[in-house]
Amino acid sequence: MNIDLELEETREIFDKALRDYIDKYEFVNEKIKNSVEYSLFTGGKRLRPVVSIKTYEMYSKDISKVLAFSMAIEMIHTYSLIHDDLPSMDNDDYRRGKLTNHKVFGEDMAILAGDGLLNLAFEVLLGDDLANEACHNHLRAAGEIARYSGLKGMIGGQVLDLNMDSKTLTEGDVLNMYRLKTSGLFTGAVVAGAIVAGADNRDIELLRSFALSLGMAYQIQDDLLDREEDKEIGKITYLSLFTKEEAKKKVDQLSEEAISKLRNLKDLDTSFLEALVYKLVNRRV
Amino acid sequence: MNIDLELEETREIFDKALRDYIDKYEFVNEKIKNSVEYSLFTGGKRLRPVVSIKTYEMYSKDISKVLAFSMAIEMIHTYSLIHDDLPSMDNDDYRRGKLTNHKVFGEDMAILAGDGLLNLAFEVLLGDDLANEACHNHLRAAGEIARYSGLKGMIGGQVLDLNMDSKTLTEGDVLNMYRLKTSGLFTGAVVAGAIVAGADNRDIELLRSFALSLGMAYQIQDDLLDREEDKEIGKITYLSLFTKEEAKKKVDQLSEEAISKLRNLKDLDTSFLEALVYKLVNRRV
Repeated sequence: MNIDLELEETREIFDKALRDYIDKYEFVNEKIKNSVEYSLFTGGKRLRPVVSIKTYEMYSKDISKVLAFSMAIEMIHTYSLIHDDLPSMDNDDYRRGKLTNHKVFGEDMAILAGDGLLNLAFEVLLGDDLANEACHNHLRAAGEIARYSGLKGMIGGQVLDLNMDSKTLTEGDVLNMYRLKTSGLFTGAVVAGAIVAGADNRDIELLRSFALSLGMAYQIQDDLLDREEDKEIGKITYLSLFTKEEAKKKVDQLSEEAISKLRNLKDLDTSFLEALVYKLVNRRV
Repeated sequence: MNIDLELEETREIFDKALRDYIDKYEFVNEKIKNSVEYSLFTGGKRLRPVVSIKTYEMYSKDISKVLAFSMAIEMIHTYSLIHDDLPSMDNDDYRRGKLTNHKVFGEDMAILAGDGLLNLAFEVLLGDDLANEACHNHLRAAGEIARYSGLKGMIGGQVLDLNMDSKTLTEGDVLNMYRLKTSGLFTGAVVAGAIVAGADNRDIELLRSFALSLGMAYQIQDDLLDREEDKEIGKITYLSLFTKEEAKKKVDQLSEEAISKLRNLKDLDTSFLEALVYKLVNRRV
């Protein structure tokens, strides 16, 4: 299997669905539409929505049911970046080589565009008219996303990040922050995909562990890449406590854990998710 | 019926439910817990959640099913106030006689507390394990709240507010902004209450119109009170275009419209909602 080709194909399907949804949405004015679109269509990798779609595809080929979830995940991811970049947060002027949202549209509009995208995620999730048998799985999957994106998930991780004390820092502190901040949305993406597809509880819990390890490996690999580009100065990361070699070893260990969870899934083609683990571990960007 | 007594009783039931929910919620640290609680328990009138509970009660007495919705509505209302008060938005140092959230906890925590409360609203709504027959109504009611709080609802109204042009301002501009910004959450509260209680579509649409008129009347009455206290300086309000007398007439007209919708509801005790209209129109705070 060609992981890059599959990533690209799924990303295209996702981008088209997102484009269609946003084109049909009647914004109150052009300014907010431009602000939302600016951050939503900025050449992101679409990793989280692609992962939710591919997890779903292990169970069922008709992906129409999972698209709302993949869109919600990407909207939540995007809003978190807009708010993260604000002057009172990370105060970043650029993201992915483009000016950040508040540099283009002003802080007030950036706050509202972020709020709007978080809210839009749930408008997408709660907008469907569902068949009876689908209702419970849908509600359960939407609930997983709500929890992993919230105060005990991604937002909670950002709270911990803001309040880290470099003097008393332990490995547990950093890993706990990563579990919430980065693994949260990955886990929401994977688990929601599986639930909507009708996976049983055993599979759901294996996939939950898989995504947790994947998200942690991804984040520490990110730390290593940031170190190479001198982009993590002043931030508390895994490399605040460990050498590059130790971090690489941790990434490998987490990747192996992720793979071993996949191997325990029965009668499923997990080749895409396996290939994705190796791709993310070896990624250069 | 004694409207003040009923308001107070329902507010107490609501406050207890909210208190219980927050006490059981495991925040990632004390700082974010304090920031969220600071704004959530600040002596607000709880008007929106009370309205959702009382709407529900016209149909059914067991209010356990509507509490999640009333909590979600109040969380959304509270987050919108936290973000509204931020320096790049209204830049307010005080609200209800207390320092605003960002003055106490810092802008970064205030942004996250706001994001967290918006997200928490959907955690509450999507956390229930539901009986089959309840699932569709639940999903539909949650969807109404998502839409009325979002980019085509409350957030949309704030966007319009930020981009008002006082030179070309028309009555339609102001009323459209109020429809989204203020009536939005009122309508979500009322409609969600009715849907979860199993109201039929005719009732739901009558209640939707009722809440729209109620919200508008409430907002213009607010403009009149702000004028008396010189608190609306620099803001675009209904009084930017009309005299106090004209505004009072508009409040009366909207109140009559709200009442007439209630009168069209059959076989329901609408006395609380009727009394509430008169109370809000004559309110001094």
